[in-house]
Parts: sequence; C-alpha cells; structure tokens
Amino acid sequence: MRLLEERIRGSAMIIAPDVLRVDMFLNHMIDVELLEAMGEEFYRLFAARQAGITKILTVEASGIAIACAAARRFGVSVLFAKKGLSSKTLDSEIYSSVIRSFTKDTLTNISVAWRFLTAEDRVLIIDDFLANGAAVRGLREIIAQAGATLVGVGIAIEKGFQPGGAQLREEGVWLESLAIVEQMEPLVFR
Amino acid sequence: MRLLEERIRGSAMIIAPDVLRVDMFLNHMIDVELLEAMGEEFYRLFAARQAGITKILTVEASGIAIACAAARRFGVSVLFAKKGLSSKTLDSEIYSSVIRSFTKDTLTNISVAWRFLTAEDRVLIIDDFLANGAAVRGLREIIAQAGATLVGVGIAIEKGFQPGGAQLREEGVWLESLAIVEQMEPLVFR
Repeated sequence: MRLLEERIRGSAMIIAPDVLRVDMFLNHMIDVELLEAMGEEFYRLFAARQAGITKILTVEASGIAIACAAARRFGVSVLFAKKGLSSKTLDSEIYSSVIRSFTKDTLTNISVAWRFLTAEDRVLIIDDFLANGAAVRGLREIIAQAGATLVGVGIAIEKGFQPGGAQLREEGVWLESLAIVEQMEPLVFR
Repeated sequence: MRLLEERIRGSAMIIAPDVLRVDMFLNHMIDVELLEAMGEEFYRLFAARQAGITKILTVEASGIAIACAAARRFGVSVLFAKKGLSSKTLDSEIYSSVIRSFTKDTLTNISVAWRFLTAEDRVLIIDDFLANGAAVRGLREIIAQAGATLVGVGIAIEKGFQPGGAQLREEGVWLESLAIVEQMEPLVFR
C-alpha cells in the first residue's frame, strides 16, 4: 500500500536494527485519515474472495484503531483480546493464551470471553505489526479454543526480515500485509 | 444520548454495586456503528462553540476506539497516553502522570511524548468511563505539563453516583457525558 509505505518512509524512526517506531501516525499519535485508507484496503483484500467474515479480532492496545477502521467496512464487530487477567470487568469464562512481546520482551496473558466467540464465527485477525508472529499465534490459539474459523490475518506493517510472516504463510495462513519492510537501513519494501 | 442509554439498558451487566460491564459493545467487543454515532454526538456537542480543537487525547486501551470515531469528525489526530514506561518503542522525553484504575485498583503510569503535545494544542479528552475522575486528572496533568489548553472532556458513560463528574464540573471543566448513570439497581439515567 503506497500511502502507508510513503508515511513510513517520511516519518517512521528506526531506533534499533530491528525496531521501527511509528508513533507519529499509528502507535501513539493516530492519523485517522490514514487509518480509514488502511481499513478500506483490508476490505478490498479480504472481501473479494467472499470470505464471509463475521468478526474482526485484535489485541489491545495498538491494534484496536486499525481493527475498528476495517470493521466498519466489513459491517462486523471488533473483538479485542484483553491483556492480563485481573480486571473486575472481565469474565471468568475465558479463552486465553500467552504471547511474548517483541518490543517489550515480556510475556503477556491475553484472553477473550467465551460468549463473544463461537464455533460459527469466521474471524479476520487484524494487528499493527508482525515480527515473530507471537500475537497472531496467541490469537489463533484463542480462535481454535472457541472452535471458530480463522479466515485470514491482516497486518499493517510486516517486518519481512523477521520470521513470523514466512512461517505463517508456510503454514497456509492467508496473510496480507499493507507494507512489508524487507530491510531497515536503508529502508527497503518488498 | 438515547441510543447509548438503550444499549446500556439492553446489554450492560451490573457485576458489583458500582461496576457496570459494557463488554458487549464497548470494552471487549466493539459495535462500530454505535461508535460512529458516539463520535458524531461528541462532534455535535463540542464543535458548536467553535472550540478550535487540534487534538483528541485519550488513554489506552478502551478509549482509543471512541477517540478515533470522534477524531474523524473533528478532522484531527488522536493521541493516546501509553501505560507503563518500559517499551523500547516509546520516547524517553515524555510527560507523565500516575492514575489509579477504579476497576483494577492499581496504580498506572501514563505518558505522552513531548513532541506530540505542544503549547499551541487545544485538547479534547475523550474516554469511555468516568467514575472518580482519575484518568481525566492524569491526562489533564499531562496537558498542563505541555502548556497546552484543555478545551473539554467527552465521556461515553459517566457514573453519576461517583464523585468525578461533579468535582470536575465544579472546577470549571467543560464536561459532556453521552450517558450518565445515576443509579445502578434499578438502572436510572440522569
């Protein structure tokens, strides 16, 4: 997606050999116009094959905005997995899995309430970044626990030099990334 | 806002005398159509007085979706305060404050990078819930640190039986809540 690539080129910051910071438009400040365009592009990519998506699944926090932009196009609800297990406002009847954050190097429990995901659901996962694929694997495990169907995975920015994307595609996952960063310095897109 | 009140009446769950769970449409599953209507209503409430809002500020995670829906109407960007201080992807040059979560009963550090908030900004705070006002106070402190102007505060659901809303209004804050729950059992709106 040229618009996103241009924005990455113009204002993303490379703060370590493998860390790309997009705080300027996605992960701290959010450019809602760009968000709209991304939602539209996800719809174009995934609606074409009549995938019959019933729900968009993401994980808090930075996936929520993109997931909502896409969900409006699909006319479905967003379900976001919650991090941690301590909230008074979360169900006790939950699907859960553990993911390792690449940027924070921490283990995080994520969970989804039983009643919001059923065997009838056809789910599109949407997230901001794909590096080693930990978040996608965690969400896929939750979808499996619910007996729901994973239709595909839509990612804003895939770091193509990390193994997550290649592994998921090898496993047969329908994965679409709006921008794939092949190399960081200098910045090269696939 | 009648649409939101109806939704609360129809599907929110009261899980403690002072805890209202809106996981069905706002805080776990997100109804993007309702979100749109809420964004439109915030625009109607705050744009009328020519407030000249330049940025919408919220705090991750559950405020992000509502803030984005509103921001699209205002034609401005969303800035969301991050929780915690450990991420590799966050600046070291930050404004920060500490908030106590009502539902989780924990202290959380929130922060915003210097470069995203300046003395020229006229800021609208948007959040999902207002109970004791801790999140709003934390965000207001960050706005003050930046020398920016707090224009107003837009809340989806205010718990009118808790003191945050009354205190903020007494202090002269322009506060608009889309639904004010006056009493939980039985559910009464102001």
